[in-house]
Amino acid sequence: MPARSLAQQLAAKQREISVAEFFERNRQILGFDNPLRALLTTVKEGVDNALDACEEAQVLPEVRVEIAREGADRVRVSVEDNGPGILKREIPNVFARLLYGSRFHANRQSRGQQGIGISAAVLYAGLTTARPAKITSKVEEEEAAHVVELLIDTQKNLPRVLSEDLTLWDRPHGTRVELLLKAKYQRGRQSPFEYLKGTAIVNPHARIVLTEPDGTRVTYERVSEEVPPVPKEVAPHPYGLELGELGSRLKAARYSSLTETLLKERAGVSPRAAREVLSAAGLTGKEAPGDVHGEELERLLAALHSVPLVPPTVDCLSPIGPLLIKRGLRNVLGEVRPDFYAPPVSRPPRVRGGFPFLVEVGLVYGGGLPVDQPIQLLRFANRVPLLFQQGACAITAAVEQMDWRRYGLDQRGGAGLPVGPALLLVHLASTKVPFTSEAKEAIAPDPEIEKELTLALQAAARHLRTHLSRRGRRDQASEKFAIIQRILPKLAEKTAHLVDRPVPDLTPVITRIMDIVFVDLTSPEGAGPTVRAEITNYTPRPRVLETFLEMPAALLGSATFAPAPDGTDPGLGRAWWTLAKLAPNARTALSVSFPPGTEVDASDLSFYVAGVDEAHLLGAEPLPGDWDIRLPRAVIEAAQDAGEPLPAADETEVDYDAAEASEGARDDD
Amino acid sequence: MPARSLAQQLAAKQREISVAEFFERNRQILGFDNPLRALLTTVKEGVDNALDACEEAQVLPEVRVEIAREGADRVRVSVEDNGPGILKREIPNVFARLLYGSRFHANRQSRGQQGIGISAAVLYAGLTTARPAKITSKVEEEEAAHVVELLIDTQKNLPRVLSEDLTLWDRPHGTRVELLLKAKYQRGRQSPFEYLKGTAIVNPHARIVLTEPDGTRVTYERVSEEVPPVPKEVAPHPYGLELGELGSRLKAARYSSLTETLLKERAGVSPRAAREVLSAAGLTGKEAPGDVHGEELERLLAALHSVPLVPPTVDCLSPIGPLLIKRGLRNVLGEVRPDFYAPPVSRPPRVRGGFPFLVEVGLVYGGGLPVDQPIQLLRFANRVPLLFQQGACAITAAVEQMDWRRYGLDQRGGAGLPVGPALLLVHLASTKVPFTSEAKEAIAPDPEIEKELTLALQAAARHLRTHLSRRGRRDQASEKFAIIQRILPKLAEKTAHLVDRPVPDLTPVITRIMDIVFVDLTSPEGAGPTVRAEITNYTPRPRVLETFLEMPAALLGSATFAPAPDGTDPGLGRAWWTLAKLAPNARTALSVSFPPGTEVDASDLSFYVAGVDEAHLLGAEPLPGDWDIRLPRAVIEAAQDAGEPLPAADETEVDYDAAEASEGARDDD
Repeated sequence: MPARSLAQQLAAKQREISVAEFFERNRQILGFDNPLRALLTTVKEGVDNALDACEEAQVLPEVRVEIAREGADRVRVSVEDNGPGILKREIPNVFARLLYGSRFHANRQSRGQQGIGISAAVLYAGLTTARPAKITSKVEEEEAAHVVELLIDTQKNLPRVLSEDLTLWDRPHGTRVELLLKAKYQRGRQSPFEYLKGTAIVNPHARIVLTEPDGTRVTYERVSEEVPPVPKEVAPHPYGLELGELGSRLKAARYSSLTETLLKERAGVSPRAAREVLSAAGLTGKEAPGDVHGEELERLLAALHSVPLVPPTVDCLSPIGPLLIKRGLRNVLGEVRPDFYAPPVSRPPRVRGGFPFLVEVGLVYGGGLPVDQPIQLLRFANRVPLLFQQGACAITAAVEQMDWRRYGLDQRGGAGLPVGPALLLVHLASTKVPFTSEAKEAIAPDPEIEKELTLALQAAARHLRTHLSRRGRRDQASEKFAIIQRILPKLAEKTAHLVDRPVPDLTPVITRIMDIVFVDLTSPEGAGPTVRAEITNYTPRPRVLETFLEMPAALLGSATFAPAPDGTDPGLGRAWWTLAKLAPNARTALSVSFPPGTEVDASDLSFYVAGVDEAHLLGAEPLPGDWDIRLPRAVIEAAQDAGEPLPAADETEVDYDAAEASEGARDDD
Repeated sequence: MPARSLAQQLAAKQREISVAEFFERNRQILGFDNPLRALLTTVKEGVDNALDACEEAQVLPEVRVEIAREGADRVRVSVEDNGPGILKREIPNVFARLLYGSRFHANRQSRGQQGIGISAAVLYAGLTTARPAKITSKVEEEEAAHVVELLIDTQKNLPRVLSEDLTLWDRPHGTRVELLLKAKYQRGRQSPFEYLKGTAIVNPHARIVLTEPDGTRVTYERVSEEVPPVPKEVAPHPYGLELGELGSRLKAARYSSLTETLLKERAGVSPRAAREVLSAAGLTGKEAPGDVHGEELERLLAALHSVPLVPPTVDCLSPIGPLLIKRGLRNVLGEVRPDFYAPPVSRPPRVRGGFPFLVEVGLVYGGGLPVDQPIQLLRFANRVPLLFQQGACAITAAVEQMDWRRYGLDQRGGAGLPVGPALLLVHLASTKVPFTSEAKEAIAPDPEIEKELTLALQAAARHLRTHLSRRGRRDQASEKFAIIQRILPKLAEKTAHLVDRPVPDLTPVITRIMDIVFVDLTSPEGAGPTVRAEITNYTPRPRVLETFLEMPAALLGSATFAPAPDGTDPGLGRAWWTLAKLAPNARTALSVSFPPGTEVDASDLSFYVAGVDEAHLLGAEPLPGDWDIRLPRAVIEAAQDAGEPLPAADETEVDYDAAEASEGARDDD
C-alpha cells in the first residue's frame, strides 16, 4: 500500500527546528543578508544593548565603536560601554543564545525587546568566519574583568564557550563585545556612521565615539547631562487585550482572588472600576482567577473593554521630550542652519493591544536643506534610528498619506513624500514596538499608531504653515516698507522742492499706509544667549501695548530681562510688560538674556500682543483666546489716558475659539 | 555597593523566551496584526500546506476553503484537502508547535519551508478566541479519521491536546483544519478571494472551491491534469556557502573521509572536481571531515568557490513553465481578453548562498486592462501569491528600477511602476526563498536574485516592445493601405473619365507604393481552434515565398494543416511551405487546425518568411539568422523560373547576429 508508506515516510521526516538553525537559514530576517547591512545590524545591536545597559544603571553612556578591515571581505567590530557589566555566569546565554534576555518580559520601553539582537550578530559572525565572539565584561564588585570566547551551537541554540579568562581593565564597570564577520564598511545613507548620527540626535545624553577603518575618529559629544529615567515596569493595560491572552494571564495569576488580580496585575483598574467591571461581567470577584473561562471570560473581557479605566501612565515610556528633540536636532544639523525649528510635538500616550505607546515629531525647515528634493525623514523607534525598509514602515505611510500642500510643501498629487527644504523626525516610543521583522527596521501598519502619527504630523505641519504664512506676510510687508520708505521721502522732497516748501513730516502718511504694529524678534549674533524684541508702532495712533513673552518654564527661571517685566508666571513660563505709550512711527525694545551656554534662539520664544488684531500685527501673535484677558487693562487705560473711545470690539476680541475649532475640524478628523 | 546589586538584579531577570511567546507578542511578524490580514494568513497557511501535501502524494489537489461569520468580529475558517493525511501521533506537533516540520531541513522547493505557518494560525486563534483548533485527518491505511482538538501552550511552545476522537469520513485520505478566530472577511485586493485566484494561476493543476460567508461559492477549476513532479531533495551546492556553515556541516558529516563527504553531501562535485578542489586546498581527501578546521577549512572553501563545479540541477525546483503560465493567466484573465500574451520567460536556475533558484515572468498586454493606471504586478514565490508588503519586495524593486519607457510603457521619470494596460506575473522558485519576515509576504533584496529578475523582466519586455512596434508599423501600414485603396481607384476613375479612357489596372501602382508582403495571422472566432495565415503580395514582382510556421512541439503533434506542409520538424515544432508563385496584389492562405479543446491562438504561433527583408515584410518575421537557410531554395528556384537575377544579398541576408548583439548589449548589462 503506497499511501501507508507515504504518510509514514512523511511523518518520519518531521523534526523540531532550532531557532538558531531557523535564523541561520533565514538570516535576512535578522538583517544580515548582505555585507553592508550585516555590519550595520551588528553595530546597531551592540550600541542598543550598550545604551539600554547604561540607562538601567543610570550612568551617562560612553560608547566606543571600532571598525577595522581585516582582509578583503572581513571586518572586525567592537562595541564597548561603561554599563553595569554582566555577571560571568550570564555572559554565554546573553551573547550566544537566541530568544534569551531580560527585557522581553518587562512591560516597559527599551531598545532591545526581543532577546535576539546581539546573539544574532554572534551567530552571523560564526557562520561567515567561524570565529568566536570575544566578550569582556566587568562588574563593579569584582577586581578583574572576565573574557569569554564563544560561539552558538546552532543545532541546539545554546552557547559553546571556547575559552574563559580574567584580565585587568581600566574601566570600573562595562562590557565590550568584539566580532570578526564578513562585512563591508562605507559611509552612506545606511551606514554605521549615519546610524550613530541618528542615535546621537535621539540620545542627547550619550557620548559616542566611532573609529572608522581608515582611523578617522568621529565623536558625538553629549548635549545633555541628564540620564533619562529608567522607564517603570507596569502591569499590562486591559485596553486591546485579547481573550486568549486574558485567559492565560489569569491562569498564571499570582493572587488568589479575581478582584486582587485585576487590581494588581492590570494597569488602570481602580477599586471602583474593578467593582464596575465585575458587576458588568456578572462575577463576584472572589473567584479564583484560573477558574474564569468560557462565557465568564468573554463577559469579563467585554466589561474590561467597556468600563472606563484610568488611561495608561507615561512612566513606562521614555519619550525624548520637546526640549531634547530640538537640542538633538540642533546638535547634528549645526552646519545646515535651518530657518525654523517647529516646536516639537509630543503626543499623550495611548494603548494598543495592551501596550502603551506615544509619538513625537520634530520638524525643521529652510536654511541649507535642499529645496528641490523630497524632505528628509528620520524614523526612530524607542530612541533607535531605523535606516532600512523605509517603504514598508507605518511612519512613512503616515507621512505619505498626508496632504502636505495644505501646509506649504510641494507634493505631487497630494500624496507621497513632499518636496522641500524640510526634515522630519518621527519617534515612536512603546513598551512593545510592532516591528515588521526581527531586524527591527520598519513599524508594521496599525490603525491606532497611524492615527497618532497623523495627529502629531498635523500638529507639526500646522506650525510650519503658520511659520510659512507669517514669513510670507512679513516678506510682503517688508517689501511694502522698503518701497514706502524709499519712495515716499523722495516724492515728498521733490514735491517740497518744486513748491518751495519745507519737507513735511511723513509719519502720518506712512503709518496710515502701513497701519501695523511690527515686532521683530531676533537673537543677535555674538551677543551671547540673548533674544531681543523690537516693537515699532506703524499705526496712525499712539498705542499703549500689553505684551507677553512665553518660553519653556525652565528657561524663564534663568532669564534676565531689560526692562524688568511687570510680572512673571514661572509655572506658565510667561513674562509681561505694559509698554509706555508708543507714538506713531516710534520704536521700543525688550531684551531677555540667559546664562552663557544656554541654548536658545528666537524660535524658542513666543511674543504675544494684546488688543491688536491679527490684521494689524506682524511678527507677534495676538493673545490666544483661552488666556484670561479679553480687553486688556493697558488698552483700557491707554484709551482713557488719550481720552479716546475704547477700541472697537473687532480690534480687541478675536474669536480664537472659533478659529481653533475650525482648524481642529479641518485637521484632526 | 549598589552596582553589585544592579548587575545581580539584572542577571536575575534574564530568562529564556519561548518561540511561541515571542510570536504571540510579535504576531505582526507572522502576518496576524489585523483582522483582515489574520484571515488571509490563516487561509494561506492552510492552502499552502494542502497543496504541498498533495504534491508530495502526487494527487491532483481538491482544496475546499470555507469561511463563515460568527458574531461581530469572529470568523470560522476551514481548509480541507485530499492529501495523504497525517499520522495521529504527528497531528499535535504539526499543528500546535512553532518551528516543527518536515520541509525546513529538505533542500527542495516547497511552499512551507519554515515550520511555522499553520501553527501560527492556531496560536492566533487561541489568543483571540481561546478556542482550540479542530483537526480531522485520515490516512489511507486506516478505516476512520482522527479528530483532535488542540491549542498551543505558549510558555512551552508545545501542543496541548484537549480531546481526541475517531470519525468516519467519506474521503479516502486527507486533512481538514478548522479554526475560530478574530477576523474579518471582505473581497478586495488583499483578500482570500484574490489569494485563491492567484493560487489558481500558478497552480493550474489544483481545483479550489471557496465558500464565502454569504454562501457564494467560487470554484477555480483545474486546467491541467498533470501533478507537477515532486521536486527532488538535493545536497546543498557549494556556491555561496559560508565558512562557518561548511565547518559545521563537515562536523556533522556521515562519511568518514573528506573525499566521500564532498562527493555525497555536496551537489555539483564530480570526482574530478573533488580531486581539483582537494589539491588546490592542499588536502589529501583522506582527512576525517570533522578534523578540517582553521586555515585548512578556509583553503577548502576558497577551492570550492574557485574550481568550476557542475551547476545546480533544476529538479529540486518546480517551475511553472511557459505553457502553464500562459494557460493559468488565460484561465483567470478570461473576461479581460488581452491582445497579447508575451511568450513567458523561464530563466535557467542559479545559486545563491548554496540554494538554487530560478525566475519566471509572464506578461500580458491590452484588451480590457486599464490604460491609465499603474500596471498590475502579481508576485509569487514557490507558487504562492504574495499579497502584502509589495513596497518591501525585491520583485517590486526590480520592476520599478527598469526603464519601461524603452519598451513602450509610460513611466514617470523612468522609474517606479510603469503605467499602461499590462499585467506582470513574476515567480521566484527556490529551495529557500529569502523572505523579509516569517509572514512570507516580500522577498528580501539580494543582488543575485535581482539580477535574474531584471534579465527575465527585460526578456519579457523585449517581447512587448516587438509586439508594440509591430502593431505600430502594422497600424501605420493599414492606414496607408486604406488610403491608397480608397483614393487611388477614385482618382483613376475620375482621370479615365476625363480623358475618356478605360480605368487602368492599378496593381502595379499600388504594389509599387506598398512594396510589402503582408501576412495576417488570425484565429477566426467560432471556427474552433484554428489559426489562419493570409499572405498578400503587395510588391511589384511575382514571388515564390518560403514560409515557416513555428509552435510548441506539443501543439505541432496534434495539428492538421491545409494545405499539407512541404515538411515538418516535430522536434523544433516547425512546419514549412514553399508557396506557389504569388502575382503582385494576389493573395493565398494557410490554415492550421487543432483538436477541439486545444488552447491556442495566433500569439502561440510564429510565422516566418524567408528571403524578404524586414523592411518589406509585415505581420510575419524574417527568417532568424541562426536558422540554417540563408538564401532559400525556393527563392533561388523562383528566380531561375522567372529568368530573373537572384535577389540582392541585402534583401535576403539580414545580419541578425549583429542585431541580437546590439540588443543584448543594450539590455542585458
